[in-house]
Amino acid sequence: MGNFSFFQMIDVLGTAAFAISGARHAMDRKLDVFGVIIIAFVTAIGGGTIRDVIIGSTPVGWLQNELTITVILIAAIGTLIIDGNHPVVPNTLFLFDSLGLGLFTLAGIDKALQYDFSVGICIALGTISACFGGVLRDVLLNKVPLIFHRELYASACIAGGVLFFLLRYLHVDGYLNQILCILLIFVVRILAVRYNLTLPAAQTDKKKLDRQ
Amino acid sequence: MGNFSFFQMIDVLGTAAFAISGARHAMDRKLDVFGVIIIAFVTAIGGGTIRDVIIGSTPVGWLQNELTITVILIAAIGTLIIDGNHPVVPNTLFLFDSLGLGLFTLAGIDKALQYDFSVGICIALGTISACFGGVLRDVLLNKVPLIFHRELYASACIAGGVLFFLLRYLHVDGYLNQILCILLIFVVRILAVRYNLTLPAAQTDKKKLDRQ
Amino acid sequence: MGNFSFFQMIDVLGTAAFAISGARHAMDRKLDVFGVIIIAFVTAIGGGTIRDVIIGSTPVGWLQNELTITVILIAAIGTLIIDGNHPVVPNTLFLFDSLGLGLFTLAGIDKALQYDFSVGICIALGTISACFGGVLRDVLLNKVPLIFHRELYASACIAGGVLFFLLRYLHVDGYLNQILCILLIFVVRILAVRYNLTLPAAQTDKKKLDRQ
Repeated sequence: MGNFSFFQMIDVLGTAAFAISGARHAMDRKLDVFGVIIIAFVTAIGGGTIRDVIIGSTPVGWLQNELTITVILIAAIGTLIIDGNHPVVPNTLFLFDSLGLGLFTLAGIDKALQYDFSVGICIALGTISACFGGVLRDVLLNKVPLIFHRELYASACIAGGVLFFLLRYLHVDGYLNQILCILLIFVVRILAVRYNLTLPAAQTDKKKLDRQ
Repeated sequence: MGNFSFFQMIDVLGTAAFAISGARHAMDRKLDVFGVIIIAFVTAIGGGTIRDVIIGSTPVGWLQNELTITVILIAAIGTLIIDGNHPVVPNTLFLFDSLGLGLFTLAGIDKALQYDFSVGICIALGTISACFGGVLRDVLLNKVPLIFHRELYASACIAGGVLFFLLRYLHVDGYLNQILCILLIFVVRILAVRYNLTLPAAQTDKKKLDRQ
Repeated sequence: MGNFSFFQMIDVLGTAAFAISGARHAMDRKLDVFGVIIIAFVTAIGGGTIRDVIIGSTPVGWLQNELTITVILIAAIGTLIIDGNHPVVPNTLFLFDSLGLGLFTLAGIDKALQYDFSVGICIALGTISACFGGVLRDVLLNKVPLIFHRELYASACIAGGVLFFLLRYLHVDGYLNQILCILLIFVVRILAVRYNLTLPAAQTDKKKLDRQ
């Protein structure tokens, strides 16, 4: 129960961080109040929704979870109201966002395991859960998704997913495994931002693209 | 039966209005004939499709409804052929579109109620049904969705949804309740356009966005 | 069994061609390695995923098909590594892509038939299976989808679908029918590109768009 509360707390903080991140991106695009709230929602629940829809776990989670919706609504409205200029805000947010990244990845893997998917698919579903809210956010804001061309973001999730199945193979199960993986994702993400690590951009010779 | 026909008629007119609206936006972007027809479809059935997919009501409605598809096809092809410059056209369209907005919201709420969702989720699903066809249309046309930064559109749906549950709480049930809510959405929408009402844009201090 | 292998081979080649096409578009946009792989995936499995999700056939196919995922991964990484400048590359790709177009259309129709949809819906689902991977690719790359404003692409699928049901009506069933339809789509597509055939663009008078 102590552990349950611990994960639930991270979940709430992670959801809030994702919602705030979405709200801020929307505010930067000068959307109206309604637009900001929708983008906050999509950022926070988009990844899990895509996961649930493609595996057929419907109604998707947030339709039946008042807590999630309440947290997002409070986070979005709070972001609209509160001055975010205090220097402690971005760093705190970044920490929650990175924790949320780890937690959402593990939650996605956990759900995928219930459906007996292969290891590769489980890791993919974990990564989708954690990253595709941001992808939908960027699509709605009419931008090429950030995670496709900057910073290690999805890579951290994949690393965490690989560690999870490695530890599982070594019979390190349950909370210990999950916490270690969340920590790895957290640390990779922090280091990636701290040292400005990115994946190499693809090279292209500007050759004529094949059709379609 | 008389009432059924009445709602069915609004449904057809609303679907047609949504399809025409989509076709015109696509024509303005100089899409080809096929593109115009697809955008007309997506605008008319997109919201209901997203609703059905996330609640797990599949196959989604339009796959089994020849009438909807026929109406959209006729509306799209008609828009491609007919000169829309007569001054009566935009106003008539706008009336149908606003009626459709109300009807689609109520249809969404009605469907949500069958799944025993909470009041907030029912209103959200109604709003998604009515508004997210336009969101998909704008995404496919490579624009930031209109409803996120201009005019009261979704707000009208939300107001109608709130009224619905208020009246329901007061035991005003059935058609009377539905018609009152459709009327409210219709009137809010007309007034919003007539008096150019908008939601306030979110303020932002152009501060550095939190990462991702 | 011989026939099965034949279709399976085209399926693999078609999937690879779609993945390579996606990877090249992504590379042209200077995405990073992860972005290129994701776009390759979305291009190859996007159409079938949308089809499966809206008809409710979940978990969607690729979640349970290791071969598809492996082929896409190899195709995407190969595209990242190999120099595509040899003149034989674009033409070979184009042939596979056109074959894939035909095969994916027929696979979509085949699946739709299992759900007893009407003829029009079956053709629509076939076309969605073949074309909407490219639509998702373009949306993620922040472009108006190519198939909405250039070249006959979806039209070839629709023509193939119409032929399929025509032959079926004439009791030409099974592989013969499928192969004839794939050939038609293949030939229409080749001719469209060879002779630069396009659908007419929609005319518009730049009149004020109806609201929303």
